[in-house]
Amino acid sequence: PGKSKSKVLKAAKSMRKLGQDDPRRVVHSLKVGLALTLASLLYYSRTLYDGFGVAGMWAVLTVVVVFEFTVGGTMSKSLNRGFATLLAGALGVGAQHFASLFGEKEEPIVLGFLVFLLGAACTFTRFFPRIKARYDYGILIFILTFSMVSVSGFQVVEVLEMAHQRLSTIIIGGATCIVVSTCICPVWAGDDLHNLITSNIEKLASYLEGFGDEYFHYSSEGEGKVKVSNKDNSFLQGYRSVLNSKSTEDSMANLARWEPRHGHFGLRHPWKQYLKIGAISRQCAYHIEALNSYINSNIQASEEFQSKIQEPCTKMSEESGKALRSLASAIKTMKDPSPANIHLENSRTAINELKVAVKASSLEQADLLAIVPVATVASTLIEIVKCVDKLSEAVH
Amino acid sequence: PGKSKSKVLKAAKSMRKLGQDDPRRVVHSLKVGLALTLASLLYYSRTLYDGFGVAGMWAVLTVVVVFEFTVGGTMSKSLNRGFATLLAGALGVGAQHFASLFGEKEEPIVLGFLVFLLGAACTFTRFFPRIKARYDYGILIFILTFSMVSVSGFQVVEVLEMAHQRLSTIIIGGATCIVVSTCICPVWAGDDLHNLITSNIEKLASYLEGFGDEYFHYSSEGEGKVKVSNKDNSFLQGYRSVLNSKSTEDSMANLARWEPRHGHFGLRHPWKQYLKIGAISRQCAYHIEALNSYINSNIQASEEFQSKIQEPCTKMSEESGKALRSLASAIKTMKDPSPANIHLENSRTAINELKVAVKASSLEQADLLAIVPVATVASTLIEIVKCVDKLSEAVH
Repeated sequence: PGKSKSKVLKAAKSMRKLGQDDPRRVVHSLKVGLALTLASLLYYSRTLYDGFGVAGMWAVLTVVVVFEFTVGGTMSKSLNRGFATLLAGALGVGAQHFASLFGEKEEPIVLGFLVFLLGAACTFTRFFPRIKARYDYGILIFILTFSMVSVSGFQVVEVLEMAHQRLSTIIIGGATCIVVSTCICPVWAGDDLHNLITSNIEKLASYLEGFGDEYFHYSSEGEGKVKVSNKDNSFLQGYRSVLNSKSTEDSMANLARWEPRHGHFGLRHPWKQYLKIGAISRQCAYHIEALNSYINSNIQASEEFQSKIQEPCTKMSEESGKALRSLASAIKTMKDPSPANIHLENSRTAINELKVAVKASSLEQADLLAIVPVATVASTLIEIVKCVDKLSEAVH
Repeated sequence: PGKSKSKVLKAAKSMRKLGQDDPRRVVHSLKVGLALTLASLLYYSRTLYDGFGVAGMWAVLTVVVVFEFTVGGTMSKSLNRGFATLLAGALGVGAQHFASLFGEKEEPIVLGFLVFLLGAACTFTRFFPRIKARYDYGILIFILTFSMVSVSGFQVVEVLEMAHQRLSTIIIGGATCIVVSTCICPVWAGDDLHNLITSNIEKLASYLEGFGDEYFHYSSEGEGKVKVSNKDNSFLQGYRSVLNSKSTEDSMANLARWEPRHGHFGLRHPWKQYLKIGAISRQCAYHIEALNSYINSNIQASEEFQSKIQEPCTKMSEESGKALRSLASAIKTMKDPSPANIHLENSRTAINELKVAVKASSLEQADLLAIVPVATVASTLIEIVKCVDKLSEAVH
């Protein structure tokens, strides 16, 4: 019992952490419960009073299937579901009518063939990346409704009645979802994307701002000594999450397209631009990953050489970090990103200073082999500065 | 009309390409059509003969919703759907019975509250990453069935009858899907993961094998000359797809877990090991990305220095590429990966050769600044060799 108790405690703890990490999750759960209860009660009262029938279940079903974490997700699924049902219903009636022109024996064969044809064709279109991203759910519902209507074997009048009921219940369910998800603490995919992009850039910025100290501080303590740093080094890990952010960004941008005007975001907000900025910051993160493999290695270069390049290197890293931070805040507040230009200018000057310093350093004394890692760090930093430059262009 | 014609032509072309890129897509579409027709005809004949009723629609619905591209996906969805329906149905009957203990007026309130509670709680558990990966669909169906059963307002006997029908139709639909997807040209997620991992490693290998020539060949043509290379350089782009492969690998590994024994893969095949290997090869790809930014820059180092390090660098890159290739083929054929050890050994020797070469090079003549990029390339290659080492350990 002690073991199971500790398991329960552990689960409770991780549940609490999940809620604390993002309180919107708790709110979302409550919202789903609310929408579900609303749809259920509607169905319940309808059954009691005017016999809405089994079709009313579709309202509940719609709520469960359609309600997503973000407004964009809910919108996209509701609209997809609604239009696909409408279209497929009409086509299904047509198919049934067409099949009824044949004899009674041939009818199931014709219908089966039509279902096969449409099912296969629609499934194939789901492989198109662009269709998959936006209309995947709609096509699914299309196949579903078409085969159900065309195979149902009802008379056309019955089908129309059924279609009317189904469509109205789906609209009720979908509308409930859209209203609840947009009116009660809405979670906008656009906002999320916006925040993700800026926080990613900020993570890169904190890494770069801290890198100079971390790298040269270590080496100045001497070779043999193990570094004892009491500072919080977590900022050095933050950039890692940027490396694999592509799929999240893509899906958020897809959902953001479905969202109506809200906050600072117009209807045709340039979400593609966010993806572009995301791609460049990911590239920057790759360079940082390369940089990071040197952070724990000893610098064996001579004191003299090191002291010469320490300043420009630290400056490069710090200034590009600052430039990133100011770009991030420019994106966040949607203001002119020109304050970043000073830092960019500074980091470019630092590159030149570094070049001068390297040129001036006396080659005879320095051991070339020992310089290699430091040189790598320096040239990786140069690449990062270039990346930041590109990023700033994309923001403008 | 000319414009719309060209549009249609374009769509047809991209459709054809989609099918040619992976013919399994066409087969999958046909399989979906087949399963759908089977389920529909079953439903159709049943309706005609013994009145299987509206519940029969659930078989069609199940097929549409459950049929996935891979066997693992179909399995996971079918099983999730089946068990969730069973469990939620039982709970729903219990909830209805519990609510009926209250008065007729309180009943809907109690039921509404229960639906709210369960809906919110289940939605919250969907945020757990581990649960989301494996049981997301099951929980969705659980909420769905529970609210539909508990709100249906039927008598317990009726509910049991309905539950029996629904469950049997779901089993019919699910079984149709599983049989069609496993028996007709099955697409195993495990196979796909296996191939993805090996092809990713091979892509890295081709890059590394070609890098030495590409980099030093360029520079030997002289500074000002623009490179005219008639060779196919596509191998230099292949590694890019490795950078963002994480989400695909994760989802495939999740699906692979659901698959039964097939081919060389046992029931408890170490899929986690694949993810580990995937992570290391991604790290290797990050280093290659860093390397790639130097491939088009001019080498300004003196001829002498360059000629000294050209050989060890090319050797390092080639040998680590060969090591990767032999590791990939070891994974592919599931054989002992020891043939890679020779190449690993060779690349380590090349590192030492490089060190000797750098030490021996006369510092006075070389311009330090010009050396920096070349030095970076060399030390990035060293990092790549380390990565390959780790990869080989993981494969063992």
